[in-house]
Amino acid sequence: MTLTGKMLIGQRAVSGNREAIRAINPATGTPMEPAYAGGHGEHVEQACALAWAAFDSYRETSLAERAAFLEAIADNIEALGDALIERAVAETGLPRPRIQGERGRTCGQLRTFARTVRAGEWLDVRVDTAQPQRQPLPRADLRQRQIALGPVAVFGASNFPLAFSVAGGDTASAFAAGCPVIVKAHGAHPGTSELVGRAVAKAVKDCGLPQGVFSLLYGSGREVGIALVTEPRIKAVGFTGSRSGGIALTQAAQARPEPIPVYAEMSSINPVYLFPAALEARAQRLAEGFVASLTQGAGQFCTNPGLVIAIAGAALDRFVATVSERLPGCAAQTMLTPGIFNAYTAGVRALAEHAQVVAKGLAAEGPNQGQAQVFITRADAFLTHAPLQAEVFGAASLVVVCADDAQVRQVCEHLEGQLTATLHLDEDDLIRAKALLPVLERKAGRLLVNDWPTGVEVCDAIVHGGPFPATSDSRSTSVGTAAILRFLRPVCYQDVPDSLLPSALQHGNPLLLRRLLNGQREA
Amino acid sequence: MTLTGKMLIGQRAVSGNREAIRAINPATGTPMEPAYAGGHGEHVEQACALAWAAFDSYRETSLAERAAFLEAIADNIEALGDALIERAVAETGLPRPRIQGERGRTCGQLRTFARTVRAGEWLDVRVDTAQPQRQPLPRADLRQRQIALGPVAVFGASNFPLAFSVAGGDTASAFAAGCPVIVKAHGAHPGTSELVGRAVAKAVKDCGLPQGVFSLLYGSGREVGIALVTEPRIKAVGFTGSRSGGIALTQAAQARPEPIPVYAEMSSINPVYLFPAALEARAQRLAEGFVASLTQGAGQFCTNPGLVIAIAGAALDRFVATVSERLPGCAAQTMLTPGIFNAYTAGVRALAEHAQVVAKGLAAEGPNQGQAQVFITRADAFLTHAPLQAEVFGAASLVVVCADDAQVRQVCEHLEGQLTATLHLDEDDLIRAKALLPVLERKAGRLLVNDWPTGVEVCDAIVHGGPFPATSDSRSTSVGTAAILRFLRPVCYQDVPDSLLPSALQHGNPLLLRRLLNGQREA
Repeated sequence: MTLTGKMLIGQRAVSGNREAIRAINPATGTPMEPAYAGGHGEHVEQACALAWAAFDSYRETSLAERAAFLEAIADNIEALGDALIERAVAETGLPRPRIQGERGRTCGQLRTFARTVRAGEWLDVRVDTAQPQRQPLPRADLRQRQIALGPVAVFGASNFPLAFSVAGGDTASAFAAGCPVIVKAHGAHPGTSELVGRAVAKAVKDCGLPQGVFSLLYGSGREVGIALVTEPRIKAVGFTGSRSGGIALTQAAQARPEPIPVYAEMSSINPVYLFPAALEARAQRLAEGFVASLTQGAGQFCTNPGLVIAIAGAALDRFVATVSERLPGCAAQTMLTPGIFNAYTAGVRALAEHAQVVAKGLAAEGPNQGQAQVFITRADAFLTHAPLQAEVFGAASLVVVCADDAQVRQVCEHLEGQLTATLHLDEDDLIRAKALLPVLERKAGRLLVNDWPTGVEVCDAIVHGGPFPATSDSRSTSVGTAAILRFLRPVCYQDVPDSLLPSALQHGNPLLLRRLLNGQREA
Repeated sequence: MTLTGKMLIGQRAVSGNREAIRAINPATGTPMEPAYAGGHGEHVEQACALAWAAFDSYRETSLAERAAFLEAIADNIEALGDALIERAVAETGLPRPRIQGERGRTCGQLRTFARTVRAGEWLDVRVDTAQPQRQPLPRADLRQRQIALGPVAVFGASNFPLAFSVAGGDTASAFAAGCPVIVKAHGAHPGTSELVGRAVAKAVKDCGLPQGVFSLLYGSGREVGIALVTEPRIKAVGFTGSRSGGIALTQAAQARPEPIPVYAEMSSINPVYLFPAALEARAQRLAEGFVASLTQGAGQFCTNPGLVIAIAGAALDRFVATVSERLPGCAAQTMLTPGIFNAYTAGVRALAEHAQVVAKGLAAEGPNQGQAQVFITRADAFLTHAPLQAEVFGAASLVVVCADDAQVRQVCEHLEGQLTATLHLDEDDLIRAKALLPVLERKAGRLLVNDWPTGVEVCDAIVHGGPFPATSDSRSTSVGTAAILRFLRPVCYQDVPDSLLPSALQHGNPLLLRRLLNGQREA
């Protein structure tokens, strides 16, 4: 499959005419072919016009049709075969097995949403039947379902070129909800984006859906992104990226004549608490687990353990000593882009201003290789120096040494919102952990015990979200089937005759949904 | 029960020291005792400190405890007896039966939320159990529940002194979700607010809850309101009122270092479509129903039918003629406040600039009485003059005359977001209605057939919400049991031992919830 360097506006391959994006192979620092000329306002307008035209019919596709569409996308991505894997490896510097695994996750995610769509629980059907004899006033027949918000703009993430990019979680959940999607490809992997975009567009065509269900745009700078977010026909936004980028999009969305929701997954340092008994029992093993989690994938995960919190003492010293032994053996790893590598370097430098180096990984041997680094500081310093709480995207972490339980709690309360909070504990730590848990529930979207936060399961129960600045909207998750709920709004139908009702609400319940019927859940 | 003119900060009655609010009996124009001296930033700080201190324990009260609290509030409001009814009638100018009915609705609403809390479906429990043998990677045990967002600021509404004020829908749903509430009383009914506030505070005490679960503040101007919305410990806002007020609060909430959700119910003109066959068959009856809905409660409902849309012809002429006959017999009615009366007068004047008067109700005989008015204009004018789409709060409405179906659709697409859209139709109109329905679904939160939009049922299926500017967040409803979902966020627990898990997630399922267990809904 030859890459064309073109955007997809519906089924049409279109060349942009603004400054071109070109992938850079981060392992070699060399630019890759082809060039992807950027789009502009007119392309956004065309894609939105198509999406708008497709919206009313796409959102009323049957559950089976929509599920089949999601499955077709997965099939088409798999059918790309090795070409996709090779291009993604070259564009991202990520190892081949990681990209293969991510493809599996991406396709699995699409198929999981297909199952969720078919089950129909997300329609949240509620029926209160008429009570014409009720005193003092009769009750009308009232029926509620969820409908899609409208066309959604999705911004591909740098660090998941498949699972959070063109056909990633945001796109899958928006499609599942019944929303057309316009993706702005991430500039770091335009070729991967084109391949996946063509797989999606082919699924649109094969399933007989209106072409506006999907478009793929390119653009350097913020022109295309801001044009998308401020387009009146875009009704929600999904974004994974930096805090500044997420805040800029959120502010643009709020400044619209009609503000719209933005789901931005932005910034998290994912505190890890080492409780005394666990630390006493297995400081060395914890240190090994920590180093492995920290350095996995060059640390380029939203859930990377960027903060370790523990009480001062011999056990913590052993933990730190093991980190100091292990980290110098960790190879520097190619980061996703020169920009991310530069930001990592700057972030590490900022940490070094207020914290001491514990250990460093092996020095870089090639371009854009991030050298792992672990710092240490006292809680007092952490509590007073805000920059110590800034996310450093990459394999850097900070150990915060607390004087006692009270200071652990103080550090905990001082934290901004997080995607995850991890507790390492033993039986003897349970009382301490129980005391801290309410604080952590207020701070994070996912709490883990005796695990490491990297690795996010795609399932019904997962939450990849959390209070600001982890995300711009703590009421939702961007991973897992609950993500479908982000792109829906309720509509109530009062005394609407059966022939005008959507099938989900018809009296005969043709979709066999378990409705909330007159206050009782149907069996 | 003597009114004290004091605020309630937790269980403490506190005098403000800013400019005082005094209710004005709108029927006589005379100020009422006592004066309610306004609070300021320090009072907000105190109430928020108490709310914050109460949050972790209140949000973990058992379902039974929380339901009992909601029921105790309802009991305590009823126990206020006639004193409440008399004060509310005097402060609002609303007729006694209306206030009695509203008390019933308010207490019924609290009890309905108690049932919803007990049923526990809102916890949305999802469990994916561990798969230690899974290849290539084992799966952890993952469990999700919903937890309360945090302390909520509620702004009482002018037009529902009980059902959308101190213990109204916003407060009930926030309490149900596990959020402490700080109410800013509406200046139009401070005495009613004090009575209800004391009923709530008594329920807090009787149920043994921490006092910070509820506070009631007063304040003229925006000082207290903005201080509340920008307080770091406030995590969500409920508001019912004007478009400008709602937008101001939303912007203040977005400008915080940590932005928070605002649920503002603001502005809706509630289009009513008269389809040709229905209009032909019963123009006169439709006109009578319209006049009754329009003038009910001096038109002071968010769902007042402020727009009537139909195709030109003899049937529409008969409708208009009947309106012209009936409206002049409708008495002017005392409006809620002098401010609302003045805004109504100004709004009617603005409509008159671009539309012709069809008929007016009887002229006012006392102060603050709103005179009903119906205007008419051509669709062309409506499409080009934005002010014709502005909400005029009161018994004013505009008939928009369309040339044909295409223009009906054009007017429909031109509308801003609405709380409701109403279709009057007969069998022969079904095809036309079906064609228009997708547009209306995009525009409104509730669609009615052959009903009138005034009158909002409190039940599971109701939606009192809709796209901007009907509300600031179309993803939710402010009436009905689904409102509990607004004040929640998901948290996932990964490999958390049973002794640390909240009861909703424990392995033994002690709350007997129908969980989503490994992808299947439990029976």
